[in-house]
Amino acid sequence: MSLTLIPPGVTAHGVTEKPILGDGAAQPATPPFRRNTEGLATAIVYCEGNFGKLDGKTANGLVRHSEMYKILAVIDSEKAGLDAGMVLDNDPKAIPICRDLEDALAHATGVPDYFIFGMAPSSGMLSPVERRLMLKAINLGMNLVNGLHQFLNDDPEFAAASKANFVEILDVRKPRDKADLRMFSGRIAEVTCPRIAVLGTDGAIGKRTTATILTRALNDRGVKTVLVGTGQTGLIQGARFGIALDAIPSQFCSGEMEATMIEAFEAENPDVIIIEGQGALSHPAYLTSTFILRGSCPDGVVLQHAPGRTMLGDFKLLPMPTPESEINLIQTFADTKVIGLCINHENMTEAEVDAAIVQYERELGIPATDALTRSPARLVDMVFAAFPALEENLIAARQ
Amino acid sequence: MSLTLIPPGVTAHGVTEKPILGDGAAQPATPPFRRNTEGLATAIVYCEGNFGKLDGKTANGLVRHSEMYKILAVIDSEKAGLDAGMVLDNDPKAIPICRDLEDALAHATGVPDYFIFGMAPSSGMLSPVERRLMLKAINLGMNLVNGLHQFLNDDPEFAAASKANFVEILDVRKPRDKADLRMFSGRIAEVTCPRIAVLGTDGAIGKRTTATILTRALNDRGVKTVLVGTGQTGLIQGARFGIALDAIPSQFCSGEMEATMIEAFEAENPDVIIIEGQGALSHPAYLTSTFILRGSCPDGVVLQHAPGRTMLGDFKLLPMPTPESEINLIQTFADTKVIGLCINHENMTEAEVDAAIVQYERELGIPATDALTRSPARLVDMVFAAFPALEENLIAARQ
Repeated sequence: MSLTLIPPGVTAHGVTEKPILGDGAAQPATPPFRRNTEGLATAIVYCEGNFGKLDGKTANGLVRHSEMYKILAVIDSEKAGLDAGMVLDNDPKAIPICRDLEDALAHATGVPDYFIFGMAPSSGMLSPVERRLMLKAINLGMNLVNGLHQFLNDDPEFAAASKANFVEILDVRKPRDKADLRMFSGRIAEVTCPRIAVLGTDGAIGKRTTATILTRALNDRGVKTVLVGTGQTGLIQGARFGIALDAIPSQFCSGEMEATMIEAFEAENPDVIIIEGQGALSHPAYLTSTFILRGSCPDGVVLQHAPGRTMLGDFKLLPMPTPESEINLIQTFADTKVIGLCINHENMTEAEVDAAIVQYERELGIPATDALTRSPARLVDMVFAAFPALEENLIAARQ
Repeated sequence: MSLTLIPPGVTAHGVTEKPILGDGAAQPATPPFRRNTEGLATAIVYCEGNFGKLDGKTANGLVRHSEMYKILAVIDSEKAGLDAGMVLDNDPKAIPICRDLEDALAHATGVPDYFIFGMAPSSGMLSPVERRLMLKAINLGMNLVNGLHQFLNDDPEFAAASKANFVEILDVRKPRDKADLRMFSGRIAEVTCPRIAVLGTDGAIGKRTTATILTRALNDRGVKTVLVGTGQTGLIQGARFGIALDAIPSQFCSGEMEATMIEAFEAENPDVIIIEGQGALSHPAYLTSTFILRGSCPDGVVLQHAPGRTMLGDFKLLPMPTPESEINLIQTFADTKVIGLCINHENMTEAEVDAAIVQYERELGIPATDALTRSPARLVDMVFAAFPALEENLIAARQ
């Protein structure tokens, strides 16, 4: 997927128009997708053994926020019977966690439109068990949403099954054709609004969640803000602009990032663009934030950090960086400024979060908050402190 | 291409054993490749309009150093009639520059084994004229070496032509299958010899050339040294270990780099590994050196810089970084130390190079040299100063 986040065959409101069967194939009649009251396609999310954990980040993200699909159930036998929202944030969402596909179908009272693979294993590949289950979902008539590095449309068995069942497979991470990939051009200079990247000190630490909340908070305050996604979860959630950077050959990553920024700016003429970061600049493996910094040239950076995490999520032998060292690295690597710190409260009590906010503000000299549990006003104030013209324009517009 | 730099169908000495025709195709008799006295396959290198320039870096590299092919001629109508070695380094190589393919075939007195596309345009794609020419070369019975991002084996017209003419197309940049790409694991810790990366302040600035000369100088001194290539030119030149990093999805770049280091270490048990850098850490687009630093974890870095270049090669509006700022960025980004500076003498007189060496040594506090025009002993001394144990082991072995 490339330009926007709306998959082929799906309208801006998530209603599937027609399945995609590949070039030249006859387009059959639209399958009878059930429509809920919100006009969204319905979906089950598969997250066996990982819901609420780091590798379940796609499922976690969809339970928190989904513009494209109405999530009817999550599959994870280890947490079956619980409410998905309660597991994540102690916030009921009326999304049951089910023990397997049959259980999920029973809760959904029928076959939903989509089966979404909700995990993000670092290898990006399907296990044999997962493969069989996804083929079963297709044979039940469900469309697949696949955010893995393995593209299922390129797999003969999946391609044949999708054709036979008149369903589509969305390979969310698939980049555009090689000949259409864009090189960095310097045209990012034409994007004249402030650009703020949400980077982090590790992978799966809440960058996308903070970016989503920050975007909503600014829009609610009257600042027109667009979010540019950079990973498969944001694309599946329905972000209108974005790319799965980690699936793009590295030669084209800066250019694809830049081009996506220009598309968002030209389409929306926003006051601010927020960019979802990936991994960490200091990370041993997940370095796509290097391309995010070069391609989007952010004026400011919000840094997401988990004080209660001591070792890297995917590399348990490597200690987490400190916010100080990460800020120094970011500001050395790019001509930008870290304007605030957001705390991921995993393994922390409320009191510890409070204390950490006070301590980081004093030590780092920038505002700090927890985007999930503190007032959105704190995020807006963080941005206004760094970009006072945004607040001045707002006041002027009201007068 | 992945593990080693020997293309399929070519032995360690560059002699083609059999053309590759794809899975299941019958293997015809070996075409009657002409053998020169060195036992290398013969080749013509295409570099129209770009020989000796930045985008001609694959051709430039092959004229300077080729372990896999005997280069019979270079095609560039703008420099037709000159000797390729003279154009590059004022060093005659008996490789004529020819005005077109017919002229090159006349100079080669027959059809050589390989037609090598010798340019590295930033888009990585063939123009229509280039496309027709390469199909013509196939139809003349030449095998193709293609270092572009566009893989010609995936192109139906090229695939059919190669099959019809019993020749092979080597898509040098093609990564291994997605399922076989390797993630960073931390196993780089098992590589216990010193690792030295040659990084630079821009692309096409001489990193590979310096790395090649440094590797040879250390080996000549008795220090067993292996070069790990990271770009298509090094692979075509015949480096035994390497990967084309810029063609790999960014998720796997650190891991592929690490795995290649482990292969080189386990196969050769060297005293030192030299790693070819790519682009520059400060570059707006070519950032694969970020993965090189994370994947190879070099103990030392040699920085290649062109004092006579004022603006970036591919981005004429952006000024070159200073060695000071690049060194600070490298040492902030990775736990390593820049141990020396190598000068690219483009746009400089001999006297200016001399003055620059003195000035940089004083300002930066590290040894400086020009790998192409100064004694290789200076490079060896640079390494011994940073890793004295290498010299001590050498002395001990002699006693």
